[in-house]
Amino acid sequence: MDAVEAANSGHPGMPMGMADAATALFTRHLKYDPADPHWPDRDRFVLSAGHGSMLLYALLHLTGYERPTIDDIKCFRQLGSPCAGHPENYELAGVEATTGPLGQGLAMAVGMAIAVRHLNAIYGDDLVDHRTFVIAGDGCLMEGINHEAVGLAGHLKLGRLIVMWDDNRITIDGSTDLSRNEDVLARYAAGGWHTVECDGLDAGKVSRALDEAVADERPTLIRCKTIIGYGAPNKQGTAATHGAALGKDEVEAARKELGWDYPPFEIPTDVAKGWHAAGQRGSVDRAEWHRRLDASKKKTEFLARIAGKIDDRWLKPHVDALIAKPPTVATRKASEMALEAINAAIPATIGGSADLTGSNNTKTKNQEPLTAENYAGRYIYYGIREFGMAAAMNGMALHGGVVPYGGTFLIFSDYCRPAIRLSALQNARVIYVMTHDSIGLGEDGPTHQPIEQLQSLRAMPQLEVYRPADAVETAECWAAALETDGPSVLALSRQNLAPVRTKASARNLCARGAYRLRKAAATRKVILIATGSEVEIALAVGDKLEAQGIGADIVSMPSTERFDAQDADYREDILPDVSNTKILRVSIEAGTTFGWERYTGLHGLRIGIDRFGASAPAADLYEKFGLTPDAIAPRVVALLTKRKML
Amino acid sequence: MDAVEAANSGHPGMPMGMADAATALFTRHLKYDPADPHWPDRDRFVLSAGHGSMLLYALLHLTGYERPTIDDIKCFRQLGSPCAGHPENYELAGVEATTGPLGQGLAMAVGMAIAVRHLNAIYGDDLVDHRTFVIAGDGCLMEGINHEAVGLAGHLKLGRLIVMWDDNRITIDGSTDLSRNEDVLARYAAGGWHTVECDGLDAGKVSRALDEAVADERPTLIRCKTIIGYGAPNKQGTAATHGAALGKDEVEAARKELGWDYPPFEIPTDVAKGWHAAGQRGSVDRAEWHRRLDASKKKTEFLARIAGKIDDRWLKPHVDALIAKPPTVATRKASEMALEAINAAIPATIGGSADLTGSNNTKTKNQEPLTAENYAGRYIYYGIREFGMAAAMNGMALHGGVVPYGGTFLIFSDYCRPAIRLSALQNARVIYVMTHDSIGLGEDGPTHQPIEQLQSLRAMPQLEVYRPADAVETAECWAAALETDGPSVLALSRQNLAPVRTKASARNLCARGAYRLRKAAATRKVILIATGSEVEIALAVGDKLEAQGIGADIVSMPSTERFDAQDADYREDILPDVSNTKILRVSIEAGTTFGWERYTGLHGLRIGIDRFGASAPAADLYEKFGLTPDAIAPRVVALLTKRKML
Repeated sequence: MDAVEAANSGHPGMPMGMADAATALFTRHLKYDPADPHWPDRDRFVLSAGHGSMLLYALLHLTGYERPTIDDIKCFRQLGSPCAGHPENYELAGVEATTGPLGQGLAMAVGMAIAVRHLNAIYGDDLVDHRTFVIAGDGCLMEGINHEAVGLAGHLKLGRLIVMWDDNRITIDGSTDLSRNEDVLARYAAGGWHTVECDGLDAGKVSRALDEAVADERPTLIRCKTIIGYGAPNKQGTAATHGAALGKDEVEAARKELGWDYPPFEIPTDVAKGWHAAGQRGSVDRAEWHRRLDASKKKTEFLARIAGKIDDRWLKPHVDALIAKPPTVATRKASEMALEAINAAIPATIGGSADLTGSNNTKTKNQEPLTAENYAGRYIYYGIREFGMAAAMNGMALHGGVVPYGGTFLIFSDYCRPAIRLSALQNARVIYVMTHDSIGLGEDGPTHQPIEQLQSLRAMPQLEVYRPADAVETAECWAAALETDGPSVLALSRQNLAPVRTKASARNLCARGAYRLRKAAATRKVILIATGSEVEIALAVGDKLEAQGIGADIVSMPSTERFDAQDADYREDILPDVSNTKILRVSIEAGTTFGWERYTGLHGLRIGIDRFGASAPAADLYEKFGLTPDAIAPRVVALLTKRKML
Repeated sequence: MDAVEAANSGHPGMPMGMADAATALFTRHLKYDPADPHWPDRDRFVLSAGHGSMLLYALLHLTGYERPTIDDIKCFRQLGSPCAGHPENYELAGVEATTGPLGQGLAMAVGMAIAVRHLNAIYGDDLVDHRTFVIAGDGCLMEGINHEAVGLAGHLKLGRLIVMWDDNRITIDGSTDLSRNEDVLARYAAGGWHTVECDGLDAGKVSRALDEAVADERPTLIRCKTIIGYGAPNKQGTAATHGAALGKDEVEAARKELGWDYPPFEIPTDVAKGWHAAGQRGSVDRAEWHRRLDASKKKTEFLARIAGKIDDRWLKPHVDALIAKPPTVATRKASEMALEAINAAIPATIGGSADLTGSNNTKTKNQEPLTAENYAGRYIYYGIREFGMAAAMNGMALHGGVVPYGGTFLIFSDYCRPAIRLSALQNARVIYVMTHDSIGLGEDGPTHQPIEQLQSLRAMPQLEVYRPADAVETAECWAAALETDGPSVLALSRQNLAPVRTKASARNLCARGAYRLRKAAATRKVILIATGSEVEIALAVGDKLEAQGIGADIVSMPSTERFDAQDADYREDILPDVSNTKILRVSIEAGTTFGWERYTGLHGLRIGIDRFGASAPAADLYEKFGLTPDAIAPRVVALLTKRKML
């Protein structure tokens, strides 16, 4: 209340209403040790109702985490303070997930709960024996993604997932009656969850509910009946306490109501001591866990898993084999071939698909399904839940010890988008296998054909998008994605592609983002820049130009972000900064041309599709949209002629 | 089965499994008249499981719609055929909505059902008395959006919405047991729905279930127990029938199994006659409806509403008043001011917000809530359901007679994105009021600060994005959005903005996308291009440059799409195509610089934010990210100096 007042910005209502429930959780149930916030066997706590961030900052401070300090808290929501408006995992240890976009905290917790069961199945109770707790609000429970999360958790019987619902009957617009008449508990029960109700303002009763939840084998939803802004006598129970400071007078009145005589940011010694003691509960557990770890034969392996180390020795033999016998395959198939090598070499990977396993080619031969009966499995049938899959993968990556990848069609990156953004913001190593990456998917038509998706994803900070052109590039892109801390999207073709990389290379060329695939034979007048399935088209266009004595470099650009990150010399070598009357740059990508000016310049030529697609066989569509060598080469020649460059 | 076979592509399983249920619906219950597919009082049918498009094409053909012809059907999924892979409303009358992205058909149907209740409340049973029927599959029911749709429909007690669930227990990956253990009916019941079960392979039983559904006051989910690919003796009941042709042998076997002796695409006369008669059931209803319409005093008004005519006479007096007394307000507030005039002038508008009413400023003084008790209301509390809101608005726009607009934060355009894409693809006049459009929202931090959203939306075909700079521009952008057939996004500031448009203009300048707000005083060396809240910053940068004798045009660019659509002369006048050593172009927008090369050229200067934001007061963030006149002007001067342009 005081921190929000100092910032004159923030959300006091939820922290005040859930203070007792959170106290029960953090002082009696949650397993953690502020002295080692990253202790692998800690319980995970996710504040899905992220706007109540001050609650979490208060808890971390009181229980003895190094940060936030009381000064950090005084600077709540100010530049440089780790106490940001919404909790960010990269700002503070103890913040397990970045939350605020509603519903996603809960859905990430499902992923954490999956990771626990999986690692427990491999390493046993001695090393992995923790739970995931969530505080969620009415917003989280109205968002569609909670349905997907409920479905996944219920199906996988994630008994160690416990969600505390802050049932305060208030949303920003007013009473929940304005927009909801649902029996929430019945809905969760219909999804296979255990449900409990309690007075959320009574820590003792919350504690008993938590005991019940822990005892049950199903995931649990605890309905904590609370009052938003509890303790603010004139505003509690109203939307006025949700997202604004209470104001001086009401803060004063709340102090009286709650019998709290201390000035802002002063914590009486006995209170501080009590909390600190609660925060030290876990130190014994942690010491015992370390003894068990030291005694375990799997210690080294376990620690490497948790550290997220990735072996890339699979790459060279795999690429060598492809060079030896270049296959003509769709890059989705090439991805499966790479995954056969990756999944054999890297035990941490957990694959899956949102019900497109056979289309995304995400399942390799030896992967068993991860099910409620076999948590050791390494393949998840996520169901038709793209967003839920993406959020769960975020949770798995944040938990650590596993490297999740999951498939859907590239078009449905739109369904996953809010979670992809959280992958990026949180630097979560999640690999999105997005197949059917253009009109090349053919007959399914415009609802399924990505046009703007590639560029929209490339516009996102901290996300790397790869669009490989053949099997070798696909392998290199997989290697680049695995070695990155943050998330990657692999955009893969449905249709078969001829091999374009037929010579061995000492280094991972795709990791540089773009490279000269073929040098101009005649005097260079043109640079053709293409990605993915259009690289073989660019090569054919180049053939036609060279046949007319027009030299054309062919640049394959699987990742614009990676290329932008190269040093100036490299970039200048690939795309020299010369007048457009000397060299014409042409981009070819079967998607929107929006943004390609970055590589062609204003006076370059951008070949793409600036409208929605159509339903027809792929070859007919490439023809219709002018994406054939026969259509492109004359356009290049015409422009060169017009510019008097020939 | 034969059309899929001919195309060797498509989804036979659902059409075969749901053929009996659809027959019951189209021959006994659905009110329509193929002679006038746009008859306003027809029932709406939405095939939410859009991959089963062949079912719908067959129904339209058999019941006597002009298209598709049997030849259209023979060309299923081929270039130029209206029988696209997924049903598209712009290809065929009788296709009420474009579906395929799962769950959205159902959610659009909710919007249609809202529109019916609303128009019925205004025009009475005589003119508006129809229902909305949906066929949905397991995919639709796993997708998160169905939770939002269920919640909205249950809350608003949309009794005239009837969803037939094709319960075939099969998804692409195999049995639904692979990914779901939910009691679907219990979940719908928890949301306030009526539920019924029936044998979906028995048209009589389906018909009785439909009667029950019609009789109940709640929205209804009918569980139709079916067998996917019903009739294909060796493949039915398996995922093999879902998304691929059955193959010659199995088609042959199915013919035997079903006792169907006719060759592909031949319809026996008696069958054709029977279906045609069923298709003519509605002609009597339609004739009676026309008699009632002719007798109605509201005939002219009603027809104008349905035709979607929009009055723009509100604009001039509103802008005149703003010019007379220019307000310093946030553009979200300016939007509310415009809406006061719009909602008074245009009775068709229905506003709403996904639980951010007071932040989006979407509710005007005289708007009453649209509730189950008052369907005549014109404001919807959508709850925390951004995607559900967007899809419902699509349904409302497709239904016609209403012009929906709805608010959320711009960052949550990511949550709505799949529905925004369907707005664009379907050319649905939906207006998205997206406030808090940059780091200018301040303390809520990076989870809430749009960075890539503006450019990601601009990359989408057939969508117009507006980012006005002050109250006058906001009014002009609203007018442009209302006059457009398709969807628009209004990106609006949280923070107050000084007026930049202080002189009257004879025409809507924003409708041209970009215009010269201020002409250079000194010799023009620079063109500063800015949008929204950054236009006043550009003006201040211009002041600083002019003070140093450097002439700078200030171009306000509220809509890049609109500007791109202007004729070459106009574009050349605003952004002359001269060497970058003559004029330096500078873009200023508080978002990603990705894509701004289109307007600055490669050698221009792009001022923006190419990383995620931070939590702090807005002014501190503008300072931190170098988005102040003091930070920008020296960068411009330095570049001019380096280029020897001074």
